[in-house]
Amino acid sequence: MGLENMARQAKVASMQMMTISTAIKDNALKAAAKALRDNYLKIVEANKKDMEAAEKAGTSSALLDRLMLNKQRVEEMAVSAEEIVSLKDPIGEVVGGSKLANGLKLSRVRVPLGVIGVIYEARPNVTVEAASLCVKAGNAVILRGGSSANHSNKILVELISNACISAGLPQGVVQMIEDTSHQTADKFMQLDKYLDVLVPRGGNELIKAVVEKATVPVLWAAAGNCHTYVDKDANQDMAIDIAINAKCQRPGVCNAMETLLVHKDIANDFLPKATSEMKANGVKMYGDKKAQAIVSDLSKATEKDYYTEYLSLELAIRVVDSLDEAIAHINKYGTGHSEAIITDDYSSAQTFTEGVDAAAVYVNASTRFTDGGQFGMGAEIGISTQKLHVRGPMGLEALTSTKYVIYGSGQTRQ
Amino acid sequence: MGLENMARQAKVASMQMMTISTAIKDNALKAAAKALRDNYLKIVEANKKDMEAAEKAGTSSALLDRLMLNKQRVEEMAVSAEEIVSLKDPIGEVVGGSKLANGLKLSRVRVPLGVIGVIYEARPNVTVEAASLCVKAGNAVILRGGSSANHSNKILVELISNACISAGLPQGVVQMIEDTSHQTADKFMQLDKYLDVLVPRGGNELIKAVVEKATVPVLWAAAGNCHTYVDKDANQDMAIDIAINAKCQRPGVCNAMETLLVHKDIANDFLPKATSEMKANGVKMYGDKKAQAIVSDLSKATEKDYYTEYLSLELAIRVVDSLDEAIAHINKYGTGHSEAIITDDYSSAQTFTEGVDAAAVYVNASTRFTDGGQFGMGAEIGISTQKLHVRGPMGLEALTSTKYVIYGSGQTRQ
Repeated sequence: MGLENMARQAKVASMQMMTISTAIKDNALKAAAKALRDNYLKIVEANKKDMEAAEKAGTSSALLDRLMLNKQRVEEMAVSAEEIVSLKDPIGEVVGGSKLANGLKLSRVRVPLGVIGVIYEARPNVTVEAASLCVKAGNAVILRGGSSANHSNKILVELISNACISAGLPQGVVQMIEDTSHQTADKFMQLDKYLDVLVPRGGNELIKAVVEKATVPVLWAAAGNCHTYVDKDANQDMAIDIAINAKCQRPGVCNAMETLLVHKDIANDFLPKATSEMKANGVKMYGDKKAQAIVSDLSKATEKDYYTEYLSLELAIRVVDSLDEAIAHINKYGTGHSEAIITDDYSSAQTFTEGVDAAAVYVNASTRFTDGGQFGMGAEIGISTQKLHVRGPMGLEALTSTKYVIYGSGQTRQ
Repeated sequence: MGLENMARQAKVASMQMMTISTAIKDNALKAAAKALRDNYLKIVEANKKDMEAAEKAGTSSALLDRLMLNKQRVEEMAVSAEEIVSLKDPIGEVVGGSKLANGLKLSRVRVPLGVIGVIYEARPNVTVEAASLCVKAGNAVILRGGSSANHSNKILVELISNACISAGLPQGVVQMIEDTSHQTADKFMQLDKYLDVLVPRGGNELIKAVVEKATVPVLWAAAGNCHTYVDKDANQDMAIDIAINAKCQRPGVCNAMETLLVHKDIANDFLPKATSEMKANGVKMYGDKKAQAIVSDLSKATEKDYYTEYLSLELAIRVVDSLDEAIAHINKYGTGHSEAIITDDYSSAQTFTEGVDAAAVYVNASTRFTDGGQFGMGAEIGISTQKLHVRGPMGLEALTSTKYVIYGSGQTRQ
């Protein structure tokens, strides 16, 4: 099917999805989970084709591992769809409203966004999560995955789509673009006649390309260059625990710490303890001049380090003269994702949370908590670092819009 | 000042604006209103230059009237700034939150968007309204008005900016792009490093150009092709009152009715009365075949009429076989702005409000109510017909984002 026909069908499906009951949507997702389980052999077989091609292309073992599916991983995908069944349906929620002086009864009601395009890279489990979230929020979805997972994605979408249709959802509710050329991707991003939003999920390169080319509105989940600032009034033991957790618990994720900022008044005391603990955890560190003067074996941190999201066991360290300097550093080099201050001082905590411009600002806690599951909103389609529509974890609510419904009794405007 | 320097200064100002008190923002807007009043002669003088150039260029009298400023209009602009002072400051509102099982106290707090770019056409009063709304919501703003109002806008921005700075707001909080070339506008739309959002305010052409060229996220206020559907169970007198109001009370605005849909079961009875009333109000009408068969002197309505936002005393009329056909017509030809059903049937009302995909859906009331003032949210920067971030009137809240603030006591992630 041509791209435009696909989008047109998605638009028609999205109109029908607006009034579909929660029960039908939930049954569709349960049926999809069952279909994945029942057909895990087919899925693994299709995935083998992707794996073989990837191996031939000399793909790194880390990427191969992200791509690989086996019975257990298919089971995890099925469970991820079922977990979305258990989330509260956001559609129909009355977000606000009032009775106006002229008697009009105004309410603002949560409705589906319509047609969502998801553009993502290798991991095939994103196919299942993204499709499930979009369907639960009453949308039609068109998926455009990476070429390396194309065989896997194809069978996954076929199974999910058939299960959804059997359960009573409209034809075209879950579709996929099999042609993974850039040319087709570019066309896809400009189908603003049919698509309501694009969600690119992947590295900075991908997001930059989508933002540049798209005429469809974009919600992006970009990089996280996150900081922990240890204030002069910090509880130092707590600061070390939190810093180690933020750096080491899972270094490859967007809410891991990349730069540690330390107030000059405690740097002499704190940095030797903190860096020795980091070293014991295998962290490679880069310090500014002041940090190097305290801990002599630190490599030199450059301007480039402050801009870098290492996504690995590496850390930049900088000694700052004041809370204001810490805030200025974060607002300059950070990506507005997750930022933390460790302090026992009330006023520093307030100044930091107000002054730092980020999706999530922490006092005395690890930045690693920024995710939909931890925040109690369930699965997410990514963590937004842009400020429109949704900031932070993008759960079901991010995949909705609102409309005003107004009940009158003949009112006309004067 | 170069465009990029201007944007950089706005970004710095926006960081300072994040923590500025309501009182200082309100004093700034009061001072701006006073400055406008005190300097009305200067404003009128600058406006004369615009008027003379526009007259020379053969501008229509309607557009000349929109451009013209006199003492009374300057007074109205001052009052519009003061009305925004009286609106509740949205910044700091706690939108949601909870205490998580691990003891983290999570709250979602309303914060400014940052730097807002407003691109608009001729009317100079937009300069004052847009600047006042952006400032009240804690943002920095860069205005790019139309070339025909450039002298007027320049003096207005100078007065507002100086008043704001005197009242304690940062340098660069309200700025204007004086070079109205398309080249500079194109560059402006791609300053995503500094700008958080662009708000184009004007015709479809403008919005299309911005959506195509911008890499900065866009909130648009586009056309309104609005419908009134008279159901078979309508109170016909009420239907005529509402239709006349929706079409005639102010035909040049985006929430005026452009097409009247009538159920076939009442068309024979309703259309002669309704069209005679429309005629008495000077409305030129175009009907489909069925409508022409009932009211013989209707011109023929074409497919093009159904897509047209007349913005004048013209009206397309179509007879539909069912409620579903009415909904399908609206979802196909409409722009998702404001739509109304007139009915006494409970189930038709529910089906219509659920099935119609629009910012505002009315039962038994005129579409003319869709505006920020009428909805009780105060002044607006436009009425959004897109679905991300805000749909419907864009008041102060539309010019904000949120951030998560999380208070902990040493929590680390397991």
